[in-house]
Amino acid sequence: MSKKTTIYDIAAKLNITAATVSRALNGNSKISESTRKLVNETAKEMNYEQNKLALALKSGKSFNIGVIVPRIDSNFFASVIRGIEEELHPHGYHVIICQTHDQDTVEIENINSLLNAQVDGILMSISNSKLETDEHFQKLLKKGVPLIFFDRRKEISGVSSVTIDDFKGAYTATQHLIDQGCKRIAHLSNNREIQIFKNRYLGYKQAIIDNGLEFDEAIVIETMSKVLEGRKTTKQLLAMEKPPDAIFSSSDFTALGAIEEIKAHGLKIPEDISVVGFSNEPFTRFMELSITSVDQSPIEMGRITAQVFLEEAKNSKKIKSEKQVILSPELIIRDSSLKSTIVSEK
Amino acid sequence: MSKKTTIYDIAAKLNITAATVSRALNGNSKISESTRKLVNETAKEMNYEQNKLALALKSGKSFNIGVIVPRIDSNFFASVIRGIEEELHPHGYHVIICQTHDQDTVEIENINSLLNAQVDGILMSISNSKLETDEHFQKLLKKGVPLIFFDRRKEISGVSSVTIDDFKGAYTATQHLIDQGCKRIAHLSNNREIQIFKNRYLGYKQAIIDNGLEFDEAIVIETMSKVLEGRKTTKQLLAMEKPPDAIFSSSDFTALGAIEEIKAHGLKIPEDISVVGFSNEPFTRFMELSITSVDQSPIEMGRITAQVFLEEAKNSKKIKSEKQVILSPELIIRDSSLKSTIVSEK
Repeated sequence: MSKKTTIYDIAAKLNITAATVSRALNGNSKISESTRKLVNETAKEMNYEQNKLALALKSGKSFNIGVIVPRIDSNFFASVIRGIEEELHPHGYHVIICQTHDQDTVEIENINSLLNAQVDGILMSISNSKLETDEHFQKLLKKGVPLIFFDRRKEISGVSSVTIDDFKGAYTATQHLIDQGCKRIAHLSNNREIQIFKNRYLGYKQAIIDNGLEFDEAIVIETMSKVLEGRKTTKQLLAMEKPPDAIFSSSDFTALGAIEEIKAHGLKIPEDISVVGFSNEPFTRFMELSITSVDQSPIEMGRITAQVFLEEAKNSKKIKSEKQVILSPELIIRDSSLKSTIVSEK
Repeated sequence: MSKKTTIYDIAAKLNITAATVSRALNGNSKISESTRKLVNETAKEMNYEQNKLALALKSGKSFNIGVIVPRIDSNFFASVIRGIEEELHPHGYHVIICQTHDQDTVEIENINSLLNAQVDGILMSISNSKLETDEHFQKLLKKGVPLIFFDRRKEISGVSSVTIDDFKGAYTATQHLIDQGCKRIAHLSNNREIQIFKNRYLGYKQAIIDNGLEFDEAIVIETMSKVLEGRKTTKQLLAMEKPPDAIFSSSDFTALGAIEEIKAHGLKIPEDISVVGFSNEPFTRFMELSITSVDQSPIEMGRITAQVFLEEAKNSKKIKSEKQVILSPELIIRDSSLKSTIVSEK
């Protein structure tokens, strides 16, 4: 790599002090017009560009925004990012993205990398970890770098968030399964220290109770949002003495795994077992057997997250404001759970 | 936002010069051990962290690597990035990602953003634009920031690349359609100023010619890699006096659009029209009618791209080396083109 030009190189070339170079580049009025011109021309000749960064450091603005997501190969997160970009781009901001792969160590590294990259703010969906400490988030707050959570959030004072009403989404999905005649509905849950998964669990549970069905903790299984994990967990459920007649999954990926496993057992969907996922990933629509899922309007979520950031960035005062935006989810009913005709035939 | 602590703040607090603070933080031997200790402790107390960046500027290393892709919501690009991360992480590098949405202006902005973020290198797949200028790439080279292309490359002296043998992938796909009895094979192409699309076109053309079929430029249509574009283009093809009996698409997304459009016309796949895509996106496997496609081993592509970067980063000398790695593609035959039984019945 060739060495970068510094203000010292320019100073040496012009036989003036580095301080003069710095002042000239920053447009300090103590510097004569002729010197300023000479310094600027020399800087250009020598391919000097650090001053942009130096200015950014000074003004506290790089116009780069960091976005951290568990994974980019999920349509949900990719769409949120798209919404963020669409909203921020007209304001001159650029989005740089990191993924955590749901590992807390990587999440911490990502935050440090983005801080080193001088981002003006971090918009993130936290990783699925059981990390107790908030230290890495507190570090951001201490440095005055705006932090905004979307979808997966942690309750941290001073941090705004944009989420959907996961309780309602799960309640509606479970109610739909009950309306279809299902009586023993299993739940593929996820790490419930993350609020979205906790709320999906609570919404599911409440719908079961409100409809006078038996709530059985044995058919609530915590798993990871992966196809293979969905298969494994469903295998467990099918091996039970009283297997479920429906599965409500907190993730489309585990729902897909559940469907693969149910088919492998020669059972029919939705007749023998109905399946509902969460997130409305595009594959739920393309599948041979399309999957019922809960839509989270991700592009809107991204846009609103960006708007919350823009507001906070404007408030450069010492005012600490915290905003919680909660969007309403929508159940998209498809083949994997729609057996109304069968029910009405009974 | 709270103001960042600078070396001037530390200097003021300790009543020493900023230069001394800077030297102490950088471990200059002219500074006494006691001063160094005092400065470091004060810097820590005052939450000073700029020195990390300053050191990064000095050493030319931030351990951040920028990856630029046209879109993150493509399994192909997400998998390449995964391969890059897996390979670079053990070396202490962090990956930050930008997407261009195939817009050249955004591509240029992304490069500038990543330069401002002080990345140690940029690994990228260029956007689908007809931009004539190489200026933004030359800027990187001039600054000595390693640039490596993967998949979508441009021929630029001094820039290494990792691609697959697109000619071979397209040739094999077209030969397969011919073997299935197809005689009038259309090609959904893309911007052929991008080498991968040019090579896919050339491979397709060569297979047509080698098999003694008529090559008809009228059924080669340039389109964008989007489902809707695939539908539109296929509509055009189906309206022709002599419509094709097969479509070889340079993208799985346009292939998906083609399938939707063919179905909407009440035609059968593969009996009436066979379809082959390119990239082996996961949805090609999940579809009701699974799609034949060309696999590009993206994780391996990412890993090798990262390895090429690591080699170049080691060569901090003035040696300019250029490496071109070409991986071999594999045709995955599925429902959308497999009609062997029908052919043999004839």
